[in-house]
Amino acid sequence: MNQEIRICEVGPRDGLQMARGMMSTADKLRWIGQLAQAGLREIEVGSFVSPRLVPQMADTGSVLQEALSIDGLTVCALACNLKGAIAAYEAGAHVVAFPISVSDTHSRANVGKGTDAQVEVMASIVDWVRSQARPMRIDAAVATAFGCSMEGPVPVDRVAQVAAAVARTGVDEIALADTVGYAHPALVREVVRATQDAVGTRLTKLHLHDTMGLGLANALAGLDEGIRAFDSCLGGLGGCPFAPGASGNIVTEDLVFMLESMGYRTGVDLSRLLAARPLLADSLPQEALRSGVAAAGIPKTFRTA
Amino acid sequence: MNQEIRICEVGPRDGLQMARGMMSTADKLRWIGQLAQAGLREIEVGSFVSPRLVPQMADTGSVLQEALSIDGLTVCALACNLKGAIAAYEAGAHVVAFPISVSDTHSRANVGKGTDAQVEVMASIVDWVRSQARPMRIDAAVATAFGCSMEGPVPVDRVAQVAAAVARTGVDEIALADTVGYAHPALVREVVRATQDAVGTRLTKLHLHDTMGLGLANALAGLDEGIRAFDSCLGGLGGCPFAPGASGNIVTEDLVFMLESMGYRTGVDLSRLLAARPLLADSLPQEALRSGVAAAGIPKTFRTA
Repeated sequence: MNQEIRICEVGPRDGLQMARGMMSTADKLRWIGQLAQAGLREIEVGSFVSPRLVPQMADTGSVLQEALSIDGLTVCALACNLKGAIAAYEAGAHVVAFPISVSDTHSRANVGKGTDAQVEVMASIVDWVRSQARPMRIDAAVATAFGCSMEGPVPVDRVAQVAAAVARTGVDEIALADTVGYAHPALVREVVRATQDAVGTRLTKLHLHDTMGLGLANALAGLDEGIRAFDSCLGGLGGCPFAPGASGNIVTEDLVFMLESMGYRTGVDLSRLLAARPLLADSLPQEALRSGVAAAGIPKTFRTA
Repeated sequence: MNQEIRICEVGPRDGLQMARGMMSTADKLRWIGQLAQAGLREIEVGSFVSPRLVPQMADTGSVLQEALSIDGLTVCALACNLKGAIAAYEAGAHVVAFPISVSDTHSRANVGKGTDAQVEVMASIVDWVRSQARPMRIDAAVATAFGCSMEGPVPVDRVAQVAAAVARTGVDEIALADTVGYAHPALVREVVRATQDAVGTRLTKLHLHDTMGLGLANALAGLDEGIRAFDSCLGGLGGCPFAPGASGNIVTEDLVFMLESMGYRTGVDLSRLLAARPLLADSLPQEALRSGVAAAGIPKTFRTA
């Protein structure tokens, strides 16, 4: 079984968009540089959405263009419509990530369109990107795949059905996202299996939140089912406007500690990763950074894979 | 496979012994009453250790005697030597828990005796208890079973060897304790399997700390290996004098949420469990209570088993 794990650091996008306070463009770039120095090979640097709605992402274009100069880094950006995807392409993104919520109610609240309409937008993005000269990877994030704060339980069959429709648009990769953080390990196993049955190896990644404290247990369940890519966020920043009180993404530091301890290879140097926290803490003094490893220190027993 | 999980709430012992501030005897009893009301069937109410060393536990005798009046509750107490075990018996404890650290250095620091000497103490306790009129369950906690802040890695063979020696003393149950919170899921699987090979079903329980944020992932790994009992602590209180910066025990609220969501039965009512937090928070205002479920609220998707 493949022991290589791809971690996509989503801090500069998912972590900052909900933060109290703004990180300056210069600080974002220094921070992204530190994250890359720590060995993170894939970073979601921002999103091409309305700066009126998400002012923290207004500088995504310039952040992205600078990030492209970092050797070996795969630079990702989020877009919620064709206009955003075109902007990502024109800025030079290596990857555009596009959310499609299985919960119709959440989809309408989040992007102003229902699930099926958003699948059609996805198809138009794939068509547009494929007609351009430069290739750009297209990832779909199948959101609210493990429950919705508005609709409640989300049927597993419907997740698989949406994933299949997304796969038919021709995207490169599909992630399952626990947008509000309601997943538990048994559900992760069930939804991952059903989605693998529907779309095969095109399902590559899990995007997990730590709302109920189960983030890494859910990651473990995903690993057991063959998942080899995860989104995570330094300090566990992030949240969800539709899940009040929810803590953020799974914590990159603790995820790396778990994976490397278990013999998986992430390419990340844990000490250097911890060294990327002070800049984040200083830039966003109102945000509490999480991480067991950061609080307790890297233990004597730690061995990298 | 058995879907019933036994949760032993160790808050009144492990949670309070490291806390800044003292909970009054009256508050302890009200709190234990609330925990039992929530459906917890087994509570470690204190420890018979020197009140000079652990002043928070000075009232264990009176707490224990009152707790015995709670219908259906299994009342446990910790003891570190024969004198403490006799005190637990004389107070009427249903269960005495006795720690034996696999790390010789940790054992000497914690109880003033090396590992092998502590196994002999265990044997003398078993002999004494078995010669009494009333039965009392005897649990051994094999501590630092997943690493030690002083010795570093703890060899798996040595854990199994100590567990086997402990089993030969005739104890009823054996728990593996991640005393400093250095475990990861692959190690949990390895150590649990080796210990099961050595002592069979006498290994019943895991005692996990959330130091690195991996507590519930480690619990999941234990579940997968057939473990059906866990220690945990409301609000994740607790810590370890030998692991600075370490957060406490795994969080009872989040553990119950995970287990019940997955279809296991804990007997605990999650809403009532959350209702036992305010008294704890009020009694120990300097302690920060953890719990994702408490912060975000019980989600719409939650179904008990």
